[in-house]
Amino acid sequence: MKDIQSELDHRRVDIKKVGVKTICYPITVLDKAKKRQHTVATVNMYVNLPHRFKGTHMSRFIEILNRFHGEIDLNSFHRILEEMKKRLQAEAAHIEISFPYFLRRENNSESLQACRYECRMHGSLENTDKLELQFVVPISLPVNMQKIASLPSSLGHWGNAVIRVRLRHFVWIEDLIILVEKGILDVQQEGDGLNHDLTLSVEGLAGKIADGLLTRKEIKWYSVTVENLGEGYSTFAATEAGERS
Amino acid sequence: MKDIQSELDHRRVDIKKVGVKTICYPITVLDKAKKRQHTVATVNMYVNLPHRFKGTHMSRFIEILNRFHGEIDLNSFHRILEEMKKRLQAEAAHIEISFPYFLRRENNSESLQACRYECRMHGSLENTDKLELQFVVPISLPVNMQKIASLPSSLGHWGNAVIRVRLRHFVWIEDLIILVEKGILDVQQEGDGLNHDLTLSVEGLAGKIADGLLTRKEIKWYSVTVENLGEGYSTFAATEAGERS
Amino acid sequence: MKDIQSELDHRRVDIKKVGVKTICYPITVLDKAKKRQHTVATVNMYVNLPHRFKGTHMSRFIEILNRFHGEIDLNSFHRILEEMKKRLQAEAAHIEISFPYFLRRENNSESLQACRYECRMHGSLENTDKLELQFVVPISLPVNMQKIASLPSSLGHWGNAVIRVRLRHFVWIEDLIILVEKGILDVQQEGDGLNHDLTLSVEGLAGKIADGLLTRKEIKWYSVTVENLGEGYSTFAATEAGERS
Amino acid sequence: MKDIQSELDHRRVDIKKVGVKTICYPITVLDKAKKRQHTVATVNMYVNLPHRFKGTHMSRFIEILNRFHGEIDLNSFHRILEEMKKRLQAEAAHIEISFPYFLRRENNSESLQACRYECRMHGSLENTDKLELQFVVPISLPVNMQKIASLPSSLGHWGNAVIRVRLRHFVWIEDLIILVEKGILDVQQEGDGLNHDLTLSVEGLAGKIADGLLTRKEIKWYSVTVENLGEGYSTFAATEAGERS
Repeated sequence: MKDIQSELDHRRVDIKKVGVKTICYPITVLDKAKKRQHTVATVNMYVNLPHRFKGTHMSRFIEILNRFHGEIDLNSFHRILEEMKKRLQAEAAHIEISFPYFLRRENNSESLQACRYECRMHGSLENTDKLELQFVVPISLPVNMQKIASLPSSLGHWGNAVIRVRLRHFVWIEDLIILVEKGILDVQQEGDGLNHDLTLSVEGLAGKIADGLLTRKEIKWYSVTVENLGEGYSTFAATEAGERS
Repeated sequence: MKDIQSELDHRRVDIKKVGVKTICYPITVLDKAKKRQHTVATVNMYVNLPHRFKGTHMSRFIEILNRFHGEIDLNSFHRILEEMKKRLQAEAAHIEISFPYFLRRENNSESLQACRYECRMHGSLENTDKLELQFVVPISLPVNMQKIASLPSSLGHWGNAVIRVRLRHFVWIEDLIILVEKGILDVQQEGDGLNHDLTLSVEGLAGKIADGLLTRKEIKWYSVTVENLGEGYSTFAATEAGERS
Repeated sequence: MKDIQSELDHRRVDIKKVGVKTICYPITVLDKAKKRQHTVATVNMYVNLPHRFKGTHMSRFIEILNRFHGEIDLNSFHRILEEMKKRLQAEAAHIEISFPYFLRRENNSESLQACRYECRMHGSLENTDKLELQFVVPISLPVNMQKIASLPSSLGHWGNAVIRVRLRHFVWIEDLIILVEKGILDVQQEGDGLNHDLTLSVEGLAGKIADGLLTRKEIKWYSVTVENLGEGYSTFAATEAGERS
Repeated sequence: MKDIQSELDHRRVDIKKVGVKTICYPITVLDKAKKRQHTVATVNMYVNLPHRFKGTHMSRFIEILNRFHGEIDLNSFHRILEEMKKRLQAEAAHIEISFPYFLRRENNSESLQACRYECRMHGSLENTDKLELQFVVPISLPVNMQKIASLPSSLGHWGNAVIRVRLRHFVWIEDLIILVEKGILDVQQEGDGLNHDLTLSVEGLAGKIADGLLTRKEIKWYSVTVENLGEGYSTFAATEAGERS
């Protein structure tokens, strides 16, 4: 009896995803200023399967990754996904790549030349390509509060803005980062009047950053999460808008 | 012009979630054998809001959490969610609690008396309560491969099974852990014949564990992810079934 | 030739330490207010050996740990070390225990009732007992800068003070935490005059905290490290004084 | 009275170290095969000071780091330390750099082309230069146990060897990694006889790796720690030998 039960149930069970994850890999990505940027990524690759999958095929993920020698751009992303879908006979293919991205800043000799932004790209291919980009923009204390506090300009880590976007067309990540940083600066300066009202709120920042993203027609969906790192715990506000699919 | 644009867009922006996160808090949870178990949790609390939210209300999350003195069970979970929804005038309320849960094992003096399972509960209240429970069951090398390798019984960490379930009725987490461990043992012993075919596959294990969960009528949805920790990267297989909402 | 070389060298090689680490274990520790506090620890146990050590003995560490059922105080610490030294025929025995320790604060309903301090105890026994205690005290922005910034009282995580002490006699950890927090508050309030000079410096704080520790005769050695969490990187200052051995 | 006490004590307090830490920075390092390798590092820089240090000087660490544009080799390491010592009028200067280092392997298309080794360099300059190099070599299950278990060749992460060395002369890190991997392979194959005695022990591996390091005259001190990742906890053995200073 148990066997029949198990067999019946068995048909209802459907392996959905198989793949490899947490591959640490040196990659190059496109860079608006320098054309190419070298960094180190953590890579996950997986597929949705309509049927039972043999473990011996796991090596195909690595074979496909090897073939691209870590050169990651929108073109190679698409080709990796196509090859995964085809060689693993999958319904859908996914690749997730996380890496620190560095922007050069030449403002002054006391600041770091290379500011770091944690990025994550999630590409998937079922019938059409989908690409979601995530990046984290650190938020410092408002400039005049730093002056009052005699903090060096790079100090005072107030929190982070975590931005996720889905795009209609290619956009330089540099342009998105600058857009988000402008929104943060606006909020920081608004409170900078005579009455020293230096309020930063997670809601105010999330709203202002979202306003900025709305001005870019290339963005068809976004999500903004702003968190204030507190002592003991953090507070956060999140907003999203646009077409989800 | 820019202002009008911004104003129009503004109405489309809708803060979706606000809350507090990564609160580290000592809690007690129900324990089948001992009635109560003391552990340490990381807590996130947040609400979905229909309108702009004032930052000064963030302290209400803490006030509500304090009132329950860290006694977490299904009853208090529901009451915390109700209070969050009411006091913050929210459309929906969420609480996420992550903690190590310990099961006593008295098999022999050489094994740890307390085996650790990482757990996570995510409760939400919109119109009705929803509760999702996640727990991680470590998978060791098959017993006879350990014998061949002269490994102490507790050594040889092959990988993990990450289980998520949504329940119709209360189930002891101890019972779910035992069910999953039985599934793992079955696969390990199946390969234990004359031909020393000690194969463990992520797909085979995920399927077998899912078969076990299907026998419990209290479970209305489950997801099983089995990962094999490799050198340099891991492989995984995931399956899910049941009613999603 | 290679063999002889290898053999000669071999005598110079001396296994120094063997043990078990990253055991996650529920423990109880002494609490000044409540007598006993439940928490969850990560435990390392190891010994210095004069000779080659057989792997089959590794289970003895677990047997010894099990016997104490996670009740950790200075008495049990000493007895665990003695048993390790004897049963493993070791020259020296070490135990390291890391755990979050919670202090109850009933100031107001908006603050967390339980403030968390990461602690670490390192006990060793060679001829005599040695005990080093480490704890981390979070540092918030100065109170009046928080007022200017309209931050909730618990927010604004400026940095951390990491304190390590070796003791002549027993001291409640609660008393040491209060001493360190008083030093931090003094520095924060000193800068709180008419000119809004709200400067916090890692050096100033480290010095002031050290001054406080010097007033306690039970402390025979201390080390204080103060770090300011910045955006992109942190700055720190460290000072130590006293008898090292 | 309290003031005098505090003043007297004050003279005993001596700030020992100040600096910056956890700077995330893109760097290039020397590579035996490719001449230069791009990677991403975490950098700490600090100095020992004989006197009170002004916080405004913290920016000098960043200025010095910027000047070298992330090109890290033994030459630049020495020059960075010299400049830190001089510009900050320090008794000693320290720089610590942690980064993943990748070795190309072209064995077969199924393995990752780039194997990752976590490295850490700690250089210091007081009167003379000192350099300590640390690297982590992953240890897999013995090859024939993997065959029995039908594991893909890259899977089965048994544990790690953490190697630290102080050098008399320059040595390619590639050569040290190969030396350590040869020691591991020898132990894995020794147990590979008719009786399927596939024992790997943390002590045996640590001793064998140490034997290998002893054959290199460039090494004046080493420490080897081998850990076996278990389910619930790990076991480890550590050995060190050589001139410490």
